[in-house]
Amino acid sequence: MTRIAAVQLAPVVGDLAGNLDRAVAAVEQSVAGGAAVVVLPELATSGYVFETPEEARVLALRPDGPALARFAAAAGGATVVVGFAELADDGVYNSAALLDASGVRAVYRKVHLWDREKHFFAPGNARPPVVETPVGRIGVLICFDLEFPEWTRIAALAGADLLAVPTNWPLGPTPEGERPAEVQIAIATARMNKIAIACADRAGRERGVDWTAGTSVVDAFGALVAQAGPGTGTAWADLDLLDSRDKRQAELVDLLADRRPDLYGPLTAAAVRR
Amino acid sequence: MTRIAAVQLAPVVGDLAGNLDRAVAAVEQSVAGGAAVVVLPELATSGYVFETPEEARVLALRPDGPALARFAAAAGGATVVVGFAELADDGVYNSAALLDASGVRAVYRKVHLWDREKHFFAPGNARPPVVETPVGRIGVLICFDLEFPEWTRIAALAGADLLAVPTNWPLGPTPEGERPAEVQIAIATARMNKIAIACADRAGRERGVDWTAGTSVVDAFGALVAQAGPGTGTAWADLDLLDSRDKRQAELVDLLADRRPDLYGPLTAAAVRR
Repeated sequence: MTRIAAVQLAPVVGDLAGNLDRAVAAVEQSVAGGAAVVVLPELATSGYVFETPEEARVLALRPDGPALARFAAAAGGATVVVGFAELADDGVYNSAALLDASGVRAVYRKVHLWDREKHFFAPGNARPPVVETPVGRIGVLICFDLEFPEWTRIAALAGADLLAVPTNWPLGPTPEGERPAEVQIAIATARMNKIAIACADRAGRERGVDWTAGTSVVDAFGALVAQAGPGTGTAWADLDLLDSRDKRQAELVDLLADRRPDLYGPLTAAAVRR
Repeated sequence: MTRIAAVQLAPVVGDLAGNLDRAVAAVEQSVAGGAAVVVLPELATSGYVFETPEEARVLALRPDGPALARFAAAAGGATVVVGFAELADDGVYNSAALLDASGVRAVYRKVHLWDREKHFFAPGNARPPVVETPVGRIGVLICFDLEFPEWTRIAALAGADLLAVPTNWPLGPTPEGERPAEVQIAIATARMNKIAIACADRAGRERGVDWTAGTSVVDAFGALVAQAGPGTGTAWADLDLLDSRDKRQAELVDLLADRRPDLYGPLTAAAVRR
């Protein structure tokens, strides 16, 4: 079994040093608790509700700089996925790093930017990385990416056992007794792809935006096995990530082999009818 | 508002005449209740748990024959979607007809066959039809098709406002207090595509198989607005199907326009890594 820690934090926009300290401490605590995989929220180092592109740029980090090195130093034997604003030569990206004690192993740049993120970030142009780790293959995508089934399918087809999803889910209207829509989507995505999913969300409020605090771990059978609850905290789950390797659902059912890519075509935007 | 009736029946395998009588009566009652769209289960005329291909063939119907004409005669001003075993020159298909008082307007042949259906039916080779009706555009797919997000996306991209989904969901293990996985998938699919979904399921037991009795209507915002409950019955919902036309979710968010088909590629099976 692999212990997953999906950590719900409450970053403070602009407080780079404090956010970094709290995020690194969360990794240390998760590793001390036995986690082999630690997932932190989207933009955990910078905060989210920017007022200007310049503000996002000032808070952005180089992946090869000292900030992310602190996560590697705290990782022990675990794999860590953390969201950060990435400073690149050609712009600022809403990114997530997958790293371990050896350093940064992959950086993913969010492709599906949500709402005003389009003012502050350049969109990524590469598919989600799927990285072989000691406990299984981890795919990385960020928040709104999860709501594009093409994107999660691509990660599943590339062999991901677990999707690590840093998120910042703004609190939306949810009927009494219902789960947040994003959690419903995680559950359905796990089930449709036979893939585990760990979403690390935010808690609290920032510049008038309330967060869902929806941190959740879903197993490969689509069962919601852990949540962080309100406030900061951690969703802990012990999963066999290799469950994701067997896509059979019944004697003659295989969730990926039963696809009909001959009929799907490129799913191009040109097909959109308005 | 458009009144939808998703009807949960309990067909008896082999009792073609009785199944047909009960299904036509359900259409008459739905229309009398004000339904503008009536959805009946998968294989509503034949039953589901076949023992041999020959049994399925004997129960199969020609779409232009007298059986489906009875549904057209009962349709009044409504559009009816009904699942049936289809007899064609090149085989037997698990099909659904969309029809109205003018007759059969479209026949869809299930593309993603589930488990032992592969023994009894030939797979369809065409995309879901999306048919313009007086109340909006209705897309038709069948049961397991709903669990392939490529397929539902294709229907959404083709402009469907409502997915009409005849189903036969065998009862699977569902944790206490959870909804059936198929209903979770319907909810998430509605939300990801901003599309309404009406699933008509079966009740009862047939040759040792229990059914989920999960008949559900989900609105374009992903809210589960009606269920039929246990036993035979109808899920009634009044929806504005035109809600599905506006894919915006926030000022700068459009669920279809924000897709990145330039990065999706053909999602081919060749990409599968085992």
